[in-house]
Amino acid sequence: MSVHTNYIEVATKGRRDVVDLSRQLVEIVAGTGVQDGVVIVFVPGSTAALTTVEYEPGLVKDLDAFLERLLPHRAEYAHHDTWHDDNGAAHLQAAVMGPSLAIPLVNGELALGTWQQPVLVDCDTRPRKRRLVVQVIC
Amino acid sequence: MSVHTNYIEVATKGRRDVVDLSRQLVEIVAGTGVQDGVVIVFVPGSTAALTTVEYEPGLVKDLDAFLERLLPHRAEYAHHDTWHDDNGAAHLQAAVMGPSLAIPLVNGELALGTWQQPVLVDCDTRPRKRRLVVQVIC
Amino acid sequence: MSVHTNYIEVATKGRRDVVDLSRQLVEIVAGTGVQDGVVIVFVPGSTAALTTVEYEPGLVKDLDAFLERLLPHRAEYAHHDTWHDDNGAAHLQAAVMGPSLAIPLVNGELALGTWQQPVLVDCDTRPRKRRLVVQVIC
Repeated sequence: MSVHTNYIEVATKGRRDVVDLSRQLVEIVAGTGVQDGVVIVFVPGSTAALTTVEYEPGLVKDLDAFLERLLPHRAEYAHHDTWHDDNGAAHLQAAVMGPSLAIPLVNGELALGTWQQPVLVDCDTRPRKRRLVVQVIC
Repeated sequence: MSVHTNYIEVATKGRRDVVDLSRQLVEIVAGTGVQDGVVIVFVPGSTAALTTVEYEPGLVKDLDAFLERLLPHRAEYAHHDTWHDDNGAAHLQAAVMGPSLAIPLVNGELALGTWQQPVLVDCDTRPRKRRLVVQVIC
Repeated sequence: MSVHTNYIEVATKGRRDVVDLSRQLVEIVAGTGVQDGVVIVFVPGSTAALTTVEYEPGLVKDLDAFLERLLPHRAEYAHHDTWHDDNGAAHLQAAVMGPSLAIPLVNGELALGTWQQPVLVDCDTRPRKRRLVVQVIC
């Protein structure tokens, strides 16, 4: 067995910026030479999440609008009293979606649907640099 | 170490159809002979999700009603303008729940609660055939 | 390869009690001696979930308020008719957040952000004893 640990560095715009991770994941997998295993993706930080979507501009806009409607940026959050911060909504949006993803790797290919892209959703209120951890386990 | 890759084929009715995967997962695990490891389940496609629920008709109805209230099928979605499609709600429902599940396997048994079933939730607006990927990692 | 299976026992107060799992996870990882791998955490039971948050009292309060607003305890759920139970909201809250978490382990450290804690969110309507499964896979 082996664990190959790699990183993806992403500069986001924050505010529900959705970043397609497909290309970098394919490159990492190819670099390991692993054919069959599982790919774990994890985002350190509590104001960003990982999921899969069909990455097209309409849905990116829809996801943004939905998250803002579900947890409005300008509502009151007790978190703001703790740190005089303004990203309570971002924390909750990220917590609901979750920070980890497990994608099977079969015959050297990620087992994704044709219209399914692994994405980072950065909910924070300002641009951020994120360093995702990608592990190929086989 | 070894990775055993298997598949579960499911025909769904769409529209938040909830499919109990317990029996097929138990069969796959038994077929591998693995006693201790982790079972990764993944749904290719961006309009369906995996989670666990107590699989009983009341909760299945409640989950359906909740998802439709959270993201109504008939609301406006920018995704519909992109493809003249009608499943914007389905995409967002699936993205929030997520496409992957990791279930520990201990002494040959999935470490699930008594009233906890792993399920596929197919949010798409029409019947679909889904082919889930199941990996037993040990 | 090896799979190290461990357990964390937690007594919760229910009602969206949020329990920080950091200390116990660090102890389990140290006990295995594993430097690089992935840590799978899973909660058996269908009324509790796992995610990560910045564990501070304000956000704990915000998460509680958000989940209760999203799925009010006192609303009507078909699940209540099935079992004359009162925790329909808890089941749906848990199903949306999900029961599993995968955290990379790199150089003997969990790859978490500085303000990111792995937590159990117990949504049930009464105090519960939970026994989480923690697997260190390497």
